[in-house]
Amino acid sequence: MHRVFNFSAGPAMLPVPVLLEAQKDMLDYKGSGMSVMEMSHRSKVYDQIIVEAEADLRKLLNVPANYKILFVQGGGTQQFAMVPMNLMKNKKADYIISGHWSKKAFEEAQMYGQATAIATSSDKKFTYVPAVKHLNITPDADYVYMCQNETIHGNTMWEIPDTQGKLLVSDSSSCFLSEPLDVSRFGLIFAGAQKNVGPAGVTIVIIREDLLTDEVFPGTPTLMRYKIHAENNSMYNTPPCYAIYICGLVFKWLLSIGGLEEMKKMNEKKAGYLYDYLDHSRLFKGLVEKKDRSLMNVTFKTPSEEMDDKFVKEAKAAGFDNLKGHRSLGGLRASIYNAMPYEGVVALVDFMKQFEAKNL
Amino acid sequence: MHRVFNFSAGPAMLPVPVLLEAQKDMLDYKGSGMSVMEMSHRSKVYDQIIVEAEADLRKLLNVPANYKILFVQGGGTQQFAMVPMNLMKNKKADYIISGHWSKKAFEEAQMYGQATAIATSSDKKFTYVPAVKHLNITPDADYVYMCQNETIHGNTMWEIPDTQGKLLVSDSSSCFLSEPLDVSRFGLIFAGAQKNVGPAGVTIVIIREDLLTDEVFPGTPTLMRYKIHAENNSMYNTPPCYAIYICGLVFKWLLSIGGLEEMKKMNEKKAGYLYDYLDHSRLFKGLVEKKDRSLMNVTFKTPSEEMDDKFVKEAKAAGFDNLKGHRSLGGLRASIYNAMPYEGVVALVDFMKQFEAKNL
Repeated sequence: MHRVFNFSAGPAMLPVPVLLEAQKDMLDYKGSGMSVMEMSHRSKVYDQIIVEAEADLRKLLNVPANYKILFVQGGGTQQFAMVPMNLMKNKKADYIISGHWSKKAFEEAQMYGQATAIATSSDKKFTYVPAVKHLNITPDADYVYMCQNETIHGNTMWEIPDTQGKLLVSDSSSCFLSEPLDVSRFGLIFAGAQKNVGPAGVTIVIIREDLLTDEVFPGTPTLMRYKIHAENNSMYNTPPCYAIYICGLVFKWLLSIGGLEEMKKMNEKKAGYLYDYLDHSRLFKGLVEKKDRSLMNVTFKTPSEEMDDKFVKEAKAAGFDNLKGHRSLGGLRASIYNAMPYEGVVALVDFMKQFEAKNL
Repeated sequence: MHRVFNFSAGPAMLPVPVLLEAQKDMLDYKGSGMSVMEMSHRSKVYDQIIVEAEADLRKLLNVPANYKILFVQGGGTQQFAMVPMNLMKNKKADYIISGHWSKKAFEEAQMYGQATAIATSSDKKFTYVPAVKHLNITPDADYVYMCQNETIHGNTMWEIPDTQGKLLVSDSSSCFLSEPLDVSRFGLIFAGAQKNVGPAGVTIVIIREDLLTDEVFPGTPTLMRYKIHAENNSMYNTPPCYAIYICGLVFKWLLSIGGLEEMKKMNEKKAGYLYDYLDHSRLFKGLVEKKDRSLMNVTFKTPSEEMDDKFVKEAKAAGFDNLKGHRSLGGLRASIYNAMPYEGVVALVDFMKQFEAKNL
């Protein structure tokens, strides 16, 4: 079996034990005589899968009892609309713009009311995260919106914003389950699965129960109402069953390695190794200010686009895939999510050192 | 390997060769060194998967060049909103109500304008399909909506309605790719994959290009605009990559067995065998008028609920799973989609005969 080190920003690497188990059970899940893909979502055998997945996620993140966990479709992009459609009661919301995705969410929210950018780091191409201590919050804003980890730029909002009592909503897609998170600080957290959690096609929403109301933007589709999903335990209609199953296997894998504290240590070790090399390299240069650097998406570049391209090409040939930066930004990016082993980062740094020696 | 005959209405059986191929390639898709679940949707290797899937579907259904094929999320339920949000320009639309799903679509459409039920078979619990020849069509209706096959009731609209020149929109979820379909008769066809096509989590939309406009209901989320999906070849955001891959394998399987003409013959043979038995049974009784019976979802019952339950239980123990009717209707249902082999139906009928002999 041939496996490469895959540095894709998402969909991304999954733990090998998860893939092996899915492979083993592909035609006959635990004696049920069928694939998980073939199961009625209303069957007992599938019910156990989704109930266990939710329970395991609850355990991993210590989700308080007054929060619901939802499995929905449409990715982060659909959340960009669902959040204001459901939560913008006063038709006002504040957005912290720390990169491409928070900017997209901000733009989408304009359709549903007055979205205000209360902080932004666009002046320096999102190479840092704006200060979130003394925010100029709109008095009757319904919520403050943030993106915890900007996948494209490679920055992380390490400090939870002081929202002066306002509801906090976070797109945590690309750092979800990479370390512990105090859910109680948020009103709503969402995460597209295709980074740390599972295959594309399922999005996890953690929402405080008091936010589940019938008061939504006029014309909000039934399927875009959080309350509908919550009341039906993510089964108002057929959920993305197989994607949820894989997420469940990932949750079990995370529990088996010791949970999110342990995962955090491993992620710090991996990212530390790569950043340490970048900080000393004479060819490669990190793009983000040290204090705001992401443990998940490491962005960097060489002195020229041509050299970047050469690196991507030679790296791919050597078994390091998807190191090209996002098309909107250029440069290079190594996404080192939970499932990327330490050995993968060490091997990448070795390869970068060789490349540096040959090309400096 | 233990496999049962799975009569689930969806998610439903998949062809064994498809599952075997997915199993084989789970950790290393054709030498790429990664699972399809782990691939960047912007990578060359994944691009080939989605492009081939679309091309194969186009071939199977003879999709005319002026129609776009989209892979979207949210299932039929999301389409119930997307259709009026995108197509109800005059805020009027006509709905043919032939069962649970067309009724749901009709109800959702009320949010976006004046939806009129121009025909219904609710008087006899949808045990037949209303006549669609001389419909009382609203003069300035934007479209006429139909559900080609009502999964819960087990009826099929065998005749394409005469819409007097109006746009025709069809929910074809549960008979999609079970036989040839003249796409040119429709403005838009959608189908949740989890019946005949693949796993839950992807919905196929076939839409005539002239319907792709910017004029949508106010507040329509970006991801719910057909034009956005079409312009971006279903890649405006991360699509449900793995589900699309499995659909692609199913398309190749359909082509390999001779396409939809051949599939139709096999489906007629399967359903014919089961209906023939039902028509002669003294214990079991089909629920739908002969002329409107579905080849996909065969609904029937015994003289009592207790007997129905007994049958479901004993059938499950004998390796025939998911024969319970939909919770909203009761009774029994055998869904015999494309992937259900003829042998499965023969074995079921044998079992039913034994059950009949013992319980009459």
